[in-house]
Amino acid sequence: MAAKSTSFDLNRFLATRTDAVNAALDRFLPSEKTKPATIHKAMRYSLFAGGKRMRPAVLLAAAAACGGSEKDAMPLACAVECIHTYSLIHDDLPAMDNDDFRRGKPTNHKVFGEGIAVLAGDALLTQAFEIAAQAKGWPRYSHRDLVLEIAKASGSLQLIAGQVADVEGEGKKTSVAQLRYIHERKTSALLCCSVRLGGMSANCSPAQLKALTDFGYNVGLAFQVIDDILDVTQTSEQLGKTAGKDVAVAKATYPAIVGLEKSRKIATQLTDKAFASLKTFQGRAVALEALAEFLLKRDK
Amino acid sequence: MAAKSTSFDLNRFLATRTDAVNAALDRFLPSEKTKPATIHKAMRYSLFAGGKRMRPAVLLAAAAACGGSEKDAMPLACAVECIHTYSLIHDDLPAMDNDDFRRGKPTNHKVFGEGIAVLAGDALLTQAFEIAAQAKGWPRYSHRDLVLEIAKASGSLQLIAGQVADVEGEGKKTSVAQLRYIHERKTSALLCCSVRLGGMSANCSPAQLKALTDFGYNVGLAFQVIDDILDVTQTSEQLGKTAGKDVAVAKATYPAIVGLEKSRKIATQLTDKAFASLKTFQGRAVALEALAEFLLKRDK
Repeated sequence: MAAKSTSFDLNRFLATRTDAVNAALDRFLPSEKTKPATIHKAMRYSLFAGGKRMRPAVLLAAAAACGGSEKDAMPLACAVECIHTYSLIHDDLPAMDNDDFRRGKPTNHKVFGEGIAVLAGDALLTQAFEIAAQAKGWPRYSHRDLVLEIAKASGSLQLIAGQVADVEGEGKKTSVAQLRYIHERKTSALLCCSVRLGGMSANCSPAQLKALTDFGYNVGLAFQVIDDILDVTQTSEQLGKTAGKDVAVAKATYPAIVGLEKSRKIATQLTDKAFASLKTFQGRAVALEALAEFLLKRDK
Repeated sequence: MAAKSTSFDLNRFLATRTDAVNAALDRFLPSEKTKPATIHKAMRYSLFAGGKRMRPAVLLAAAAACGGSEKDAMPLACAVECIHTYSLIHDDLPAMDNDDFRRGKPTNHKVFGEGIAVLAGDALLTQAFEIAAQAKGWPRYSHRDLVLEIAKASGSLQLIAGQVADVEGEGKKTSVAQLRYIHERKTSALLCCSVRLGGMSANCSPAQLKALTDFGYNVGLAFQVIDDILDVTQTSEQLGKTAGKDVAVAKATYPAIVGLEKSRKIATQLTDKAFASLKTFQGRAVALEALAEFLLKRDK
């Protein structure tokens, strides 16, 4: 795959957007001193644990591709990051994936205890909707649409369904079709939702929303395939979380089912599909293209 | 306190509203067969475990007091019940209150395991916003207002703050002021939110909303004081949940701090305050009045 965006400075884009998202999250979240302090410390601990802000980044890039402003997109970018962080806190719990480290730091329940970790996840999920409600609405995309978009992508048919299927699939034989079902929900749903929300914040056309949906769906799947690959090929130190975990718990992954080489090929094919759906933006989706390339080439 | 609503058939009101709320919840929630079946079974297990539907009842009664329709209020009634049920599932977890029984049945995690119980709570919380987004909006009370209302009442400054303070307060000396702080958040916030949402669904006047807010706040506090009293005075069989639990874990309660008689007096005073705020409805708030009486006189 040839580089498609050599003139675009992705590092600068990511650094500036991460700073802007962090500053906005800091404004939206109650301070660490706000009573009860424990819950706000716990929420902020995971929210500011050095996440890649990939979902906010694709959301802001999608808004830019549709001619929207960062200001209009930012509340939604913060909302999806709250959703993502809540899902990580709950996934890491002993009753679920039982992970001790995340992003190179002890997981939320290792620091604050299980009870507060459950509540911190609950609070971030709730906060996501409070923040989303503060976004700008349009006649075409009302607050009702924005809330429905987030609730559906995060609900029992999508994000949560992925986690359930993931937990229930451990140790069982899984087909490629089942694995795709899990990946669509576990990762693609919220990434696709992020891209769509970016477009919606920019009052995009229905055709643009369709293109963004296809893009988000395929990039989301590619992202998860690569996550599976990295779990096999990288060390815990490189990843900042426990490597080899998927193999240890016999979790269904692409490398486990179709092998490493075929997994890499699938990731590339998905990314190519994603690129194809950006043609309609006629060069205005440079940030999205650069992000897709980055997601495919990342090593952690 | 004299009976204020002898002509109103509260039992009939509660029975018909409970049936209507149950039917609406059944329509809003994915069926038990919807994949992944486990999560939808778990969500429905707790949602249809015989709850009193007190929050939907006050919401529908508030809507009626403002001349609104049950149809317009129903999505919001279902949303608050989803929030209430999610909070019970998570509160019962071993990492929190560690309760084995709720409403006379084994708690969610006893039936489905802790991992699914966490996810079922998450899913109901998310579902609440999906359902609320389907309510009717008004120029005065938009979807943005409705979502903010629910998110704030359920968030880290209210409902979740109450649970945090409750957990952190166990075994510690608690003042009456601290206890009121906990009760305001743990119970009053969502009850007050329910009453307000009922008014908002009926496009109520700002004066009506103020009256409903005062009513909800005081009834919510009274409700929790009575819960504390019943924990001391009733058996597990009568309550359908573990009685004496508060004493066993040295939880701060009104009877523990001010004694049983004073607790009863406080509950009556709060209910009287609630009644006073309904005067503005000039007799059209019969259902709300009857509900307040019922909440004070209940024995389980």
